[in-house]
Amino acid sequence: MASSREHPLGGSFVQAASAVARDIEAYWQDLERDSPPWPVMSSATPGQVLSKFPGDAPMHPESLERVLADVREVILPGLTHWQAPGFFGYFPANTSPPAVLADLLCAGLGVQGMSWATSPACTELEVRVLDWLARAIGLPARFEFGDGSGLGGAVIQGTASEAAITTLVAARSRVRNRLGPSARIGVYASTQAHSSIAKAAMIAGVIDRAPDFAGPGDDGGALADDQRSGGVLRLIAPGKGLSMDTSALSRAMSRDAAMGITPTFVVATVGTTASMAVDDVGACATLAERHGAWLHVDAAFAGAACVCPEFRDLLRGCERADSFCFNPHKWLLTTFDCDCLYLADRRAIIDALSVTPEYLRNPAATPAANPAAHPARIDYRDWQLPLGRRMRALKLWFVMRLYGVEGLRAYIREHVRLGEMFAAIVAADDRLELVAPRGLSLVCFAPRPKPGEILASVNERARALLLATNADGRVYLTHATLPTEADGSARAAAQRFVLRMAIGGSFTQERHVRLAWSLIRGALP
Amino acid sequence: MASSREHPLGGSFVQAASAVARDIEAYWQDLERDSPPWPVMSSATPGQVLSKFPGDAPMHPESLERVLADVREVILPGLTHWQAPGFFGYFPANTSPPAVLADLLCAGLGVQGMSWATSPACTELEVRVLDWLARAIGLPARFEFGDGSGLGGAVIQGTASEAAITTLVAARSRVRNRLGPSARIGVYASTQAHSSIAKAAMIAGVIDRAPDFAGPGDDGGALADDQRSGGVLRLIAPGKGLSMDTSALSRAMSRDAAMGITPTFVVATVGTTASMAVDDVGACATLAERHGAWLHVDAAFAGAACVCPEFRDLLRGCERADSFCFNPHKWLLTTFDCDCLYLADRRAIIDALSVTPEYLRNPAATPAANPAAHPARIDYRDWQLPLGRRMRALKLWFVMRLYGVEGLRAYIREHVRLGEMFAAIVAADDRLELVAPRGLSLVCFAPRPKPGEILASVNERARALLLATNADGRVYLTHATLPTEADGSARAAAQRFVLRMAIGGSFTQERHVRLAWSLIRGALP
Repeated sequence: MASSREHPLGGSFVQAASAVARDIEAYWQDLERDSPPWPVMSSATPGQVLSKFPGDAPMHPESLERVLADVREVILPGLTHWQAPGFFGYFPANTSPPAVLADLLCAGLGVQGMSWATSPACTELEVRVLDWLARAIGLPARFEFGDGSGLGGAVIQGTASEAAITTLVAARSRVRNRLGPSARIGVYASTQAHSSIAKAAMIAGVIDRAPDFAGPGDDGGALADDQRSGGVLRLIAPGKGLSMDTSALSRAMSRDAAMGITPTFVVATVGTTASMAVDDVGACATLAERHGAWLHVDAAFAGAACVCPEFRDLLRGCERADSFCFNPHKWLLTTFDCDCLYLADRRAIIDALSVTPEYLRNPAATPAANPAAHPARIDYRDWQLPLGRRMRALKLWFVMRLYGVEGLRAYIREHVRLGEMFAAIVAADDRLELVAPRGLSLVCFAPRPKPGEILASVNERARALLLATNADGRVYLTHATLPTEADGSARAAAQRFVLRMAIGGSFTQERHVRLAWSLIRGALP
Repeated sequence: MASSREHPLGGSFVQAASAVARDIEAYWQDLERDSPPWPVMSSATPGQVLSKFPGDAPMHPESLERVLADVREVILPGLTHWQAPGFFGYFPANTSPPAVLADLLCAGLGVQGMSWATSPACTELEVRVLDWLARAIGLPARFEFGDGSGLGGAVIQGTASEAAITTLVAARSRVRNRLGPSARIGVYASTQAHSSIAKAAMIAGVIDRAPDFAGPGDDGGALADDQRSGGVLRLIAPGKGLSMDTSALSRAMSRDAAMGITPTFVVATVGTTASMAVDDVGACATLAERHGAWLHVDAAFAGAACVCPEFRDLLRGCERADSFCFNPHKWLLTTFDCDCLYLADRRAIIDALSVTPEYLRNPAATPAANPAAHPARIDYRDWQLPLGRRMRALKLWFVMRLYGVEGLRAYIREHVRLGEMFAAIVAADDRLELVAPRGLSLVCFAPRPKPGEILASVNERARALLLATNADGRVYLTHATLPTEADGSARAAAQRFVLRMAIGGSFTQERHVRLAWSLIRGALP
């Protein structure tokens, strides 16, 4: 074989792509049927899919037809179907026809955007669509590239996890540049923050092992204090409405500062995974400014809602943050992976991550951290963990152009309307209660405790309700545990088991939400 | 808009996908024309592409036709064309028709494989194809999952950069578990190792800033010794043939150990980016074993060649490594991103990276680090930096089935044959010389120094030759600097500027290599 062009597709590339597209279209139609061929949550047992494949790769080419038949017969039945309209678990993981087409194009172009010179259009399209998106969600102008006269800028990361690692590394570097080598690093977030924050602290070496999320700790939150690595992670208990108790945050930061630990990185969550709780970003900013800490806003799930002006209260205080990220791959029709990370001062991240060996130098290179450089003249390798990067901006560009901002607004508004509808239905049933305030399209609910019923019992009934609802197979919900109002601490004993109805699937419509309710109601005693 | 299905594609999804596929096919055909419409290396000036787009996203949907027209008219002329058959720069970044189809399918299925339960087939397909690939390249059986009775296992990472961070974090965790909190971490690699190793040490907090790659250092290599973070990175100078001087490595590790620094992580490179030099993995293993350090083998570029039995000498010593990675997205027809990371003991990585909050717990969960668990019952979120992950195994599966192992061998052999051919042509021209031994399909060459000519002068002639060759636009080579034989140190003054002919493009054929030679010859005085 002289080149990949002598490919064994049994026809032209265009015919083969059409065949795959037909299978995708058929898959989506199957998911939308009143009786889909598979349960949303896979019923496969461990090893079931594995056992269908031979132990070795084939020595000689097989046909595309045969591989696609295996997709239909072996792969599809073994999936949990995140695109099923009855998928209400975890968080939405949107895909959409325009984004799928852009991913196809991205793979076909096969360019590397690690630096500007390695494909200028890859970098410049990203610069432009990230500014588009900043304006579309009403983010403060300081996070835009604009004409380059400011210090703002943005980058597409794979996930919010990577955005957290990247910004934590930048924050640590900024502290060490200012205070010198011996600074002990303090990281702060809510117990309700995403697990990726603790993981980022572990990867960066601030702490050595994961905190006990369910255990007691500092100010009622979990604590990971690691003398060895010289850093601490403080997980602060929530106050009212499950947002971070900023008085407790203030005490923790001051106490650390008095102990010689430098408050370095504060994460405010706008829309927690568990319950869509929103931290008080402004109060966090005041504390971060007082201590010279970096404020990172994680709006992974909720950020998409800000395309609608009526939800932009979510951004209150964000104008004082150092960084802000959200995931169009969650709830903005853009296929995974696409996390958009916005920075108030792009130099901090480049300072911390730039390492340029000779073979990556090129005549177009300018001092990367020079804010006066043309805003399009960016080497994105210095804004992220890996070196290589593909042209992910294409999918954001396709989505924004093919839906238009108004189309995106209509999409979000419909899901929020369905969330309101579902919350009202639950609230009207006296066997159930909303355990946390509805957040956008996310509803956390559970059986209402009977008079004198202990928490363990009501939790057990909630768990049984979840299993019974999911048993039908046409919908899938997952759970969370939330601290009870009676006890703001994170002690395991005080956690309430809740069912989460996360409405945000690309193909979800009112009838699927009503189906979920009919199954829940049917499972209630 | 009630759901993404009311999409504005102006036709069916299948028709739209066919239109995109036609544009991709036309792009590939354009790249293969004798006179391609664009130079391989983009001639765009900074801001040129950016200025073609409006400052705001459209409020209302635009048509797919219009977006695809912009791709043709604005995007394509602004790319550096990594898939052009005359692209010989940096390293190959393969794409191929089967892999593109798999990426299309991956986007359409839109599943999340963060844990086994969130899509069992996503995890189990990955387990199977990684074992397929391990056998196809002749990797020692200890790196396979097999029947799960051993401790081996593998995971698809985005890039070798992420594999380096992940394994360094695991190595650090293993040392701290053994020696306690105060262990100072030592990291070792060749000055010729990929820049991602230094970046990993920065991200993990072992060191605070990038070492000066071109500067003098320990044993002639670069040194980053950081009292603040308590760690060191030693970049060891190469010996003969540009592979790491393992005597110098031995001295550095012993000296560090005597100083109270724990040798923690040794990276052996099999096929350096600059010159395809191969470190002595066996010697590195002996030193790593002596000090209890983790040995990671980075075979990002060269690993693909091991599908051919005649190149498996490259794997000598790897049976003693803790981890091994290579990138099918470089030279094995699998579209970026796809780095395959193999582990001798999968528990180490899970121990270091697992952090499981309540909302990710599920009934199927078993103790993740339990080696007796079914090998398919894996939560891959604990094997990588981010939480989310898409179904990247699909593209490896499509490639292996549609080409077959023999097809992959033929592909690699043809590129190596072209590398041999090109090296012979260069060697036969007395105006040029091979500056490093040919490594597989990579040839490093430069003008032969004239009697008495100083290095700066011959380097200047090399640089001029590179620019003159690339000026034609039909081929694109990049450069590296290599330590001269006369001086094994990494001092900038002793570096030789070389042109790199990296043959490995998916569409590259003999005529493109001959074209490159005719342009080089024409540019010689």
